[in-house]
Formats: sequence, structure tokens, C-alpha cells
Amino acid sequence: MIGGGQGAFIGAVHRIASRIDDRYDLLAGCLSSTADRALASAKEIGIDPSRSYPDFKTMAKEEAQREDGVEVVSIVTPNHMHAGPSIEFLKRDVNVICDKPLTATMEDAHSLYKAVKESKAHFFLSHNYTGYPVVREMRRIVQEGTLGKIRVLKGSYLQGWLGKKEEDTGENKQAEWRTDPKRSGVAGAVGDIGSHTMHLLEFVTGLKVQEVAADLTTFVEGRKLDDDASILIRLNNKAKGSLSISQVAIGEENNLKISIYGERGAIHWEQENPNFARMSIDGKLDQIITRGGPIHKESSMANIRIPPGHPEGYLEGFAQIYSDAADIIQNIGNAKELIKILPNIEEGLHIMKFINATVQSSNSNSQWISIE
Amino acid sequence: MIGGGQGAFIGAVHRIASRIDDRYDLLAGCLSSTADRALASAKEIGIDPSRSYPDFKTMAKEEAQREDGVEVVSIVTPNHMHAGPSIEFLKRDVNVICDKPLTATMEDAHSLYKAVKESKAHFFLSHNYTGYPVVREMRRIVQEGTLGKIRVLKGSYLQGWLGKKEEDTGENKQAEWRTDPKRSGVAGAVGDIGSHTMHLLEFVTGLKVQEVAADLTTFVEGRKLDDDASILIRLNNKAKGSLSISQVAIGEENNLKISIYGERGAIHWEQENPNFARMSIDGKLDQIITRGGPIHKESSMANIRIPPGHPEGYLEGFAQIYSDAADIIQNIGNAKELIKILPNIEEGLHIMKFINATVQSSNSNSQWISIE
Amino acid sequence: MIGGGQGAFIGAVHRIASRIDDRYDLLAGCLSSTADRALASAKEIGIDPSRSYPDFKTMAKEEAQREDGVEVVSIVTPNHMHAGPSIEFLKRDVNVICDKPLTATMEDAHSLYKAVKESKAHFFLSHNYTGYPVVREMRRIVQEGTLGKIRVLKGSYLQGWLGKKEEDTGENKQAEWRTDPKRSGVAGAVGDIGSHTMHLLEFVTGLKVQEVAADLTTFVEGRKLDDDASILIRLNNKAKGSLSISQVAIGEENNLKISIYGERGAIHWEQENPNFARMSIDGKLDQIITRGGPIHKESSMANIRIPPGHPEGYLEGFAQIYSDAADIIQNIGNAKELIKILPNIEEGLHIMKFINATVQSSNSNSQWISIE
Amino acid sequence: MIGGGQGAFIGAVHRIASRIDDRYDLLAGCLSSTADRALASAKEIGIDPSRSYPDFKTMAKEEAQREDGVEVVSIVTPNHMHAGPSIEFLKRDVNVICDKPLTATMEDAHSLYKAVKESKAHFFLSHNYTGYPVVREMRRIVQEGTLGKIRVLKGSYLQGWLGKKEEDTGENKQAEWRTDPKRSGVAGAVGDIGSHTMHLLEFVTGLKVQEVAADLTTFVEGRKLDDDASILIRLNNKAKGSLSISQVAIGEENNLKISIYGERGAIHWEQENPNFARMSIDGKLDQIITRGGPIHKESSMANIRIPPGHPEGYLEGFAQIYSDAADIIQNIGNAKELIKILPNIEEGLHIMKFINATVQSSNSNSQWISIE
Repeated sequence: MIGGGQGAFIGAVHRIASRIDDRYDLLAGCLSSTADRALASAKEIGIDPSRSYPDFKTMAKEEAQREDGVEVVSIVTPNHMHAGPSIEFLKRDVNVICDKPLTATMEDAHSLYKAVKESKAHFFLSHNYTGYPVVREMRRIVQEGTLGKIRVLKGSYLQGWLGKKEEDTGENKQAEWRTDPKRSGVAGAVGDIGSHTMHLLEFVTGLKVQEVAADLTTFVEGRKLDDDASILIRLNNKAKGSLSISQVAIGEENNLKISIYGERGAIHWEQENPNFARMSIDGKLDQIITRGGPIHKESSMANIRIPPGHPEGYLEGFAQIYSDAADIIQNIGNAKELIKILPNIEEGLHIMKFINATVQSSNSNSQWISIE
Repeated sequence: MIGGGQGAFIGAVHRIASRIDDRYDLLAGCLSSTADRALASAKEIGIDPSRSYPDFKTMAKEEAQREDGVEVVSIVTPNHMHAGPSIEFLKRDVNVICDKPLTATMEDAHSLYKAVKESKAHFFLSHNYTGYPVVREMRRIVQEGTLGKIRVLKGSYLQGWLGKKEEDTGENKQAEWRTDPKRSGVAGAVGDIGSHTMHLLEFVTGLKVQEVAADLTTFVEGRKLDDDASILIRLNNKAKGSLSISQVAIGEENNLKISIYGERGAIHWEQENPNFARMSIDGKLDQIITRGGPIHKESSMANIRIPPGHPEGYLEGFAQIYSDAADIIQNIGNAKELIKILPNIEEGLHIMKFINATVQSSNSNSQWISIE
Repeated sequence: MIGGGQGAFIGAVHRIASRIDDRYDLLAGCLSSTADRALASAKEIGIDPSRSYPDFKTMAKEEAQREDGVEVVSIVTPNHMHAGPSIEFLKRDVNVICDKPLTATMEDAHSLYKAVKESKAHFFLSHNYTGYPVVREMRRIVQEGTLGKIRVLKGSYLQGWLGKKEEDTGENKQAEWRTDPKRSGVAGAVGDIGSHTMHLLEFVTGLKVQEVAADLTTFVEGRKLDDDASILIRLNNKAKGSLSISQVAIGEENNLKISIYGERGAIHWEQENPNFARMSIDGKLDQIITRGGPIHKESSMANIRIPPGHPEGYLEGFAQIYSDAADIIQNIGNAKELIKILPNIEEGLHIMKFINATVQSSNSNSQWISIE
Repeated sequence: MIGGGQGAFIGAVHRIASRIDDRYDLLAGCLSSTADRALASAKEIGIDPSRSYPDFKTMAKEEAQREDGVEVVSIVTPNHMHAGPSIEFLKRDVNVICDKPLTATMEDAHSLYKAVKESKAHFFLSHNYTGYPVVREMRRIVQEGTLGKIRVLKGSYLQGWLGKKEEDTGENKQAEWRTDPKRSGVAGAVGDIGSHTMHLLEFVTGLKVQEVAADLTTFVEGRKLDDDASILIRLNNKAKGSLSISQVAIGEENNLKISIYGERGAIHWEQENPNFARMSIDGKLDQIITRGGPIHKESSMANIRIPPGHPEGYLEGFAQIYSDAADIIQNIGNAKELIKILPNIEEGLHIMKFINATVQSSNSNSQWISIE
């Protein structure tokens, strides 16, 4: 992993994601541009110090020489630091998973493009919204022609976290680099979340944007990049639409929505409730697609880890119990508080009594039965 | 881990959950009651064969003797097999995380209770719905008295997966043991999901159920345990309410809902959209609690792994990208299809062009700009 | 009309309802049990004073003798005053529309029943929730067998307006009579809103309740009737279920919901969003029924006054404009404030300019066009 | 009333709206441009034939001469016929309520503007969405500065009813004139529903649009006016935003939504669920505004006809019962079917038994009690 040291956000997300399906081990890293911080971060995460590198070039070189060198590297740095490390590893045919957008500048983008083409390794971008089971079903449905020829695409991605000048508080590393043209590139909100929105609409429809007419605004005084954008889009095959992008939309957390309208039907998805999509087919009742529901069973490109109706956060709910149990067992952190709330033997016994009383009541024509 | 071999459901969930926060390593197991199957499952999961045991007694004994023996064991077997293994490990002071409900019979429940009391180890039940950040906030809010004295509690947990006689299809191990009194105990739906509902209401309010009047039904002919229940409940402190429990509620996936009404306010939560709760306070506008939103920032017992608005399934979306990348890199499974849909360099470059064209358009007073 | 004078609630609702489809003229009344108040109320509403009667007996007698006497009478009094007036009019073969529930006592109910059987006139109860187009479609769907044999019925009707002792404030006539056993009968919340819930479930399914097991509570100290109830129900044809009824559910406004589960499917409706219902059919995606949508077009027992998607409150939005215009024209009430907000010629012209500029911009490849 | 004869849609809506609050009597009309049809329509509606006029000029002249001539006239014709009749009545100082948009052409708009300025009468446009209680509260909230300075406005108004070439079916008068430039003016969807959207955003915020950049499309081949539009907008006070307008958005019924974001908060409203709005204030939990809820009680410009939680369609539900009762009493139309479903004495008695059994069960500690 390149980047993702102390104070970073997306690095931790990448690490959790890599563990969920137990397909990756984190073996080496260059977690920070400061050597000390890189090492401290590596220790915290459990990377062998001998494989914590001071810079990405050294890492690429040394790991490529090891027999047990990394097969894949995750690049989770700010945008201006995507191309450099990616190219170093691609040169050595190490696979790369890189955060989006591709780079900060078009120049870097083209260099990286060339490096990918010349490498034997794979290169992936973490447009993570394409990993949702429901989104992948939508792609299948739309590309099989269920909605007819696509006419109109609407995308909106609204956040409120940059509603004030967060980058000046000194406490928000995210805000700092995302509003800094040197690290982010020519665009702020458009680069950060507009890129996801456009990619997602293209992913689902298979269409490609061909022309844009845009109105970018910087609402927060003194900010150097756009924090709001309204964009008209024209795609191939005569499809059209618009995007609403904002990071100053107070009250919005991560409100990404898409709607796709064709000649025969439409489909809608919201990231804040991602286990559902709504589909309209002309002349029929609207239908609700659920992760793991009937449509899905037929064919799927995605991993349904848990049964229908257990929204995916279900796993994190479970993880919480496990994590709290670890704190208690190791008697660290919040252990004293946690032990009061974790389900324990008293509660187990009590609920057993509840179950038995319930059965007994029903067996006696619903008489009231005491517990205890 | 005891149980959770091939064909099981909740074992895999426990394993994923234990990996998310990187606090556990899975070192030993007795994954099935059949020795062969146990070994095969262990290999699949990556447990060292020398620590795959043919039965839980052997495992408890041998692991307790090792210096590097397991610190915690997960019990993910059917209900009738909770007490036995738990007791074996507790006797040896190994911590236990056990699936709910506690046991199949009251006798077992009391034996296990005794074993926990005599052990130095911890015992936890995986009432996983208490691990949601929003649920823990609700607990804090209610127990701080925000709603006033609690009057009415409503819980419903509705599923439809047992609407037909699934246990006779020969293909649904879940349905088999959950409808079998020998393995599940005296209750079917009430034991499986009624137990969660009752526990969750108690967890949030701190009240305890004291009396029940119930009407249990077996709608599917020939089934041996209840598949539907309506239950009146009376709790301490004069609170009252009812539970609606069903596994024959066609169309319901995992619809667990609770509502708690007090003298001054009320609070509501739905598991199928678990990042939100609604709170009413007398004379004020209703308020929406979100995971990681303003209320939460003040004080929290739960781990906010990702920013507000990124629903927790966000991690699984990311995980999907990682998992697919692994398939492609190792050229296994669906690799050929996956490579068509994973975000790659072409898409990265294309989206970079979109970003740049957008900025350019905005800079030229929203003129249309071509991409490519 | 009998009842519905100053300070009453449901009388005004009946009057509006009778005007919407222009099928009724309000010609005579006995709007209050106090003669003076009756007359004052009559004048206010525009009833000819000569047809405002001091008591319902006089009204029934005199109206029946007139050649142009009323064809229908609305009874909108508290429950204990339903039977008396109804019987007087029925005796004279005048049709009756009576508010629910039927009466305050079983004795009255039987007397009224007899009177209806002996009269040539019609007798209707205003169980108004059966008048929603979507509810009538649900009835058709369920009774045609789409859901298979019905298994489980769930109803809940939750309000919070009696969360405190409103009947003692001296300002809430509604609260006074509804919590007074003399005027309401043996039941409070159960009679007022439980009656709607039970009727609605029966209306949709065609089943009839045969047995109840109930737990009624009076949460507000000193109140004389129940303000909360949990009820187990058993219906004919082996259907079962439960009702949750409350008028102390803080934060709830008029939250009436029903769910009906059968062997092959389920259907759900919420009164607070009454233009939609959700239908599940085993093995298919869930479907959304809308007022006036595809299902409806085939066959309907209800009046679709406005196009799909214009929720029914649309008419009241329109009515507001008309009503405000009347205030302004007559220069009464809020006229000075209203004239500032009613859409007028300035706004009309401005919006015309917007429309024209929009077309002009589009015609010039989306150039920005100024308005004015 | 001018227009609104057989086959028209909005005329009937205006008539219902005018009756709801009982402030208008419909006395005269020129309901169609064909004299015969005008007369037939007038008879149907109950207008005295002597006051059904063959053309609007005659009507304006004759009504103005009568002592009991109309005080107000409703103009519910297609757009190109708004200015002519309005001017005739305004000249004679008769108040006008006119459907939106103002006219078909800018020329007409200016002539009408002049006529209003020279008349003593009032002129109102039926931008009906400004009549919703929640919308008026939103206006108060925004204009009191609760959200801070407004930054971004989003409006979308999506319908699907023109997804095919409805204007050629010969059965859809609405589609015919709304897609005909002679009757509608230069814009199709933008004039019909874009006008509402823009007006509503201005109504709530008090801002005025100053510049537009638009992309209008005609997706249905051969149609003469736009059926889809994406519009960038710039308003005074540096506010900005976009509008999404479509009448080919398959599956959408009447999906009008607005979102307004300011420096300190945001507010959101959807016409398809119009009794609710969502408000975000920076650093606080989101709040839900309901029609008649706590905010509203303080101050209101709108008529709350029914209690909170009874959504406004409640009145139509009631009206349905009244209308059906009228059919049965007069033995017309669907009377034989309707009598089977209208709540009657049997159901009244049955529900009385239910209420009594419920109380009896609760009094005997929730024993099951039979009904009948």
C-alpha cells in the first residue's frame, strides 16, 4: 500500500475492503511521504518494519526483487501521487489498484495510460460504487435492453462537508488536499465526486459522454477549486442529461443518485440506501429490485455475502460485536463500558425464558405467563 | 470456530465480521460434526490441518494445552450444540462468542449459565443488531431519559423465507435445523428471530420483559415448530407492547423494526435501512438520526468506520472491487467477465477527460466542450 | 346534518367531502344540542334559518313533511348520539350517512340495526379509509385471490394527540367526548381508531374477526377510557394477526398501516402516504401500486379525480389558491398578506420570459441568455 | 368559467377546488369554443343555459351588465386563449383566475400585463403548488433566513405521459394542444411544467432567475415542441442551480421536487408526498416538517382543513363515500356494486361487537373472547 498512513481516510477503507473476502494479506507499504510517519503507521497496522519503505521507488524496486514480493499494490494517495507510484510498479509488472480519479493532470493521465499499456500487470481504479450488487444488476438490465434505447441520464452527488472553509481549520487533511489544485488537479468537487457520478452512469448504461456544458462555482470564499457544479451532458447514441455535483450542499452526507430513462422504461438507485433499486417499465407497475432478490438469483456478477434483507451493513454490525469482544478480552480501550452492553449470559438466559414463556402462553390459549 | 463448515450460513458471517476490524486470526476449528467435512472445510478456509479437530472436546483440550492456543472460540452451530462446546471451553477459561439464542432447552441454558459463572473467561452472545452505531445511539438517548418514562414498545421481525415447506426440499440446511425441535428447541420463529426482537427492545430501553401472552401458529402444514407469532408483552416499570414475528410473511426479507414510545417522545429504527433512526420529541419537529451525524459526534460506543452518508455496505462495495481484482490477477473464476466491468485505465483516462472538459466549459461560460 | 356546529371537527370534513363531487346541497340542520348555537352555526354555514332545527326530532318530522325535504341526513355527533337521530330519520325513510363507530352501546347498536332493517332508506357508515382508490384496488386484488389464502393480518393505528390529559384543558372538545364513557361508550382508542383498523382489514380481505385477546391500557392517569391497546385477532378461514392501537404514541399523527400476508403474496398500505401500496408476489420483484397507475386502469370502483402522480392533496392546493383569491377579492381576513404571495401578473410575465429565454438558449447551443 | 368543457382536464380540477372551501358558485360559462358543446357542457355541470355563452366576448359583455354578474372568471383554456378572455373581463373590472403559463406568446403576455395594470380587478395565476401548507411554511422558513444566504437551487419535474406520440392517437386532447406550438407557444415541457418548477423555486426563496443556459430536446420523433430539458440557472444574489424537466421520463407520474441549499441549511420537498418537507440545519439533526405539525402551529398562511397526519387526500376518501352514497340513493351508475362495499349497518354492528369483545378480553386479563 502506498499512502493511507495516520490521518488518512480512504487507506483504511481499502484495507478493510481487502480483508472482507479474505483474498489479500497486507505485506508491505510506504504509508506516508515522511519516512518516520510511514514506519509508525506500518507498525500500527502490523506490517513487518523491514517491508515499510521510505519512498515508493525503493519499495517498487525491492519488492520486485523479493521472491515473496507483493503481487498487488494499492495506491491510496492524493491524486497528484497516483501516476508516479503506479508507473514504478507497472514497470515491474506488479498489479495496481489505484484510487480515483486517475491523476491530477492530463499529462500524468497519458503517461500512466502508456505505462499500463506497456505492462503485463493489471491496473484497476477503485470506482467502488460499481461494486454494489444492485448496481451490477442494473447494468445487466439496462445493457440487455430492458429499458429500450436510453434517452435521459440524471446523476447527482451531493455532500455538505465543505460548506465552510474546512481546509483552513488545520484539522482536516482531507479538505486540505482535495481543495488544493497542486494535489487534486484542475477540479475540486467535479474531480472528487463528479468523476464517480459520470463513471457510474457510463458503467450502468455502457454509453460514453461526448460533450459537456458546465457551470462550476466556488461558493466558499477563498477556496481554490470548484465546490459546486451543474453540468449538461451529451452522450453517444443521442442520449442526454445532466449532473448536479456539490460539496457545499449542507445536510447532505453522501447523496449519490442516478436515474436512467429509456424509451420503454427507467431505473433509479440511491447510494444511501444501496440495497434497493426501482425499475419502471411502460404499462407495468413499478418494481423494486433488492440485493439478492428474485432478479438477482438468475445471474450475478457480484458476491451476495449475506441473505436478502440483511443490508450490507449487517456485516459491520456483527464486526462491532467482535471488535468489542476483543477490547474486553484484552481489557483495553472502552472495555469497562463495553462489558455493560455486550450481550452476555444473563441476557442469553433471560431471552431463553422469554422464548419458553411465549411457547407456554400460546399453548395455554394465550394466557399471560410470567418470566422468572 | 465450532461449526460453520460447508453449507452453513452464519459461520461465514462470523468470519467476515471478525476480519473487518483486523482484531482476530482464525487459527483452529471444528467446523463440522463429520470429521472429513470438518477437515475439508478447514482447508478451504486456510486453517492449519493440524488444528482442525474432529470434535469440540478434543479441540478444547488440545488448544488449552498449547501455548499459542486460541484465546477466543466462536460457536456457530445450531442451538442444541451451543451449550456443550461453550462449557468445554469455559472450563478451560477460553473466551466464547456464541450465536443466539443461548441454547435449545432451558436445562442447557441453566448449565451453561453455571459454567459461565464458574469460568474466568468472557461469554458473549452475537445479538448482532446491538452492534449498529445508530442502535447504540438510540440506547444512549432512551436511557438518558430523552423520551421520558417509556410506555409502549413495538417490535416486529418479519421474514418470508419459510413461506413454503423449505425443510423438505433437501437443499436448505438452514430450514432443516431451524424447524427441527431437536436442534432448535421448543420454538421456531420465536426462538430464531423473536429472540432478537425482544433482546433489541430491552437493549435500547434497559427494561426487561416480565409477562407474555402469545399466539403461536404453524401455518405451513406438517411443520413441527411455530412459523408465526403475535405476542403481547408487559415489562417492568409498567411498560407494555407487542411483538409481531413471522417467517411466512411472503415478500419480507429481513424486516426487523422497533418503535419505542415514552411520555415525552418516541424513537424508531428499521434494520433494512439501518443507518437512520427517527426521533419524535413532543412539541418539536421529528428528527432524523444518522450514523455519524451530529448526535453521534458527541459520544459514541460504536465504531464509525466510514464517513456519514456512506452506508455501511460501502465497505462491501469496495470489497467487491478488491475481490474481483483478485480473481482477475489470479485468473480464476469469472476473471474473463470481470475484466470487462472493472474500472480500468481506459475509464480512468476517459473520466479525466470528462473532468477537464467540464472545467474548460465552465471557464468559457458553459460552452459545450467535446470529449476526445 | 345533525351535529357539526362550532368547535366540531368531523362535521366540517363531512361538509367538504359532500361538496367535492358536487352531488349534495346542505339544506337543513340541527348542528348543536344548544338551540342558539345550532342557529348561529347554521347561519355561518349558509343554511336557511327556517331549516335550522332546535332538535333532531323536530327536524326529522318537519323535513319529512316538506316536499323538498332532505333526501339524506349526515349524523356527525358523538357516538352516544348516533342511534337516536338515525332512527328518527330512518323511520321516515330518509337516508342516513352516520359517523363511525355505530353507537356508544351495544343496546343502541341493536336498536339501530332493527331500525335500518325496517326502513326503506339506506344507512351508511363513514369508514372513510375505504374510499381511497388504492384501498379499493387492494380489495379487488386480495379478493381475486392474487395473494392466495390469507394467513396473517397486521394493523396499526397510532396517534399521539392524547399523550397528555387533553380532556382537562377545557379547550379540546374532541378529547373531552372521546375520553368520556357516557358519550364514547366502553372503549376509547379502540372505539375511535381501533374500529377503523379492524374494519379496513376486513374490507380489504373479506374476512371477519371471530375472536380477540386484548390488553387495553390507560397510560394517562385519571383518564376514564383506554388510550392504548394491543390486540390479538383470529378471523375466519384460519387467518390470524394483531392490532396495535394507541392515542398516546407521541410523535405519531395519524399513522394507520395495514399489512396482509397470504400463501402466495402480501400487500401493504399506509394512510399517511395513501396514493401508494406495495405488493409482493412470491418469486417476483415487489411491485408498487399507485392511484391511477397501470393496475387501476383495468377496473376501478373509485373515482380518479386527477391524473396519476398528482396526489390527492393536489385538489386542496388548488382550493387554497381559490380560497385566497376569494379573500382578496372580498378584501377580508388575511387579504393584505395573501396578495403578496398569490401568483399574479408580474410573476406570470416573468415566467413567460423564463420560458422564452430557455428556448432561446437551447436554440443557441445552450448559451447563457439573460432574463430581462 | 372559460374553457373546461367535455374532454378537458384542468377545468374540472378548478371547479372542485372552488367548491372545497365553499367560497364560489359557478353561475356562468363559455365552456367550449363550439357553441353546441359549450351548451351541452354547461347543462351537464348545472349552469343555467341562459348564462352559457357562445363566446367569451359576449359573456364578458353580458355578465358585466347584469347586476348579479360574475365577480370572478376562471380561464382554463389552452395557453393561446388566456390573454383574449382575460383582457375582456379585466376591461370590465371582473376578477380573473387564469391557468398557467400566462400566455402562448410574449406579445400576448405584454398585452395582458397592460390590461391588468389598467384594470381595477385582480388577476391570479393558478400556480397551484404554492397553495400547499408545507410549501408556504418553507417559504416562511427560507425567507426568514433560517438557511442563511441561498447558494444552490435544484428543481426537477419529471413526467412520462408523453413518452410515446400521444398527440397522434386522436384520443388525447391534452397531448394535442400541449405539443402544438400554435396553442402552447414556443415551449412544450418547459412551458407546461418547467414554468411551475421555476415559479415554485422563486416562490419559496424570493429570488428571481436572471440567466439560463438550456438544452431542450424533442425525443419523440415528429413532435413539434420540446419534451425534455436540462437547464442551468443563475439567480440574483449569486444563487445558482439547475432544472431537470421531462415529459418522456417513463414511469414518472408527476414527480416535482425541489431542494434549496443555503449557507447554514437546506430544505427539500416532493410533490408526490406533499405533506412533508425535510430541513437540514448545519450541525443539527435533520428535521421533518409536516402539514399542521409543530412549526406550523406558530404561524401559517394556509388553511389546515384537517388534523396533522390525515394527508390531504383524506378529504377525497371521504368524498368518495359521499359520492357513492349518492349513486346508491339515486340508484344510478355503479349502484349495485357500490352497495356491496359501502360500510353499512351489518358492518357497523359487527365492529361494535369487536369493540366490546376487545374491552371484555382486556378486562379478563387478555382471555380470548368470541365475537358473536
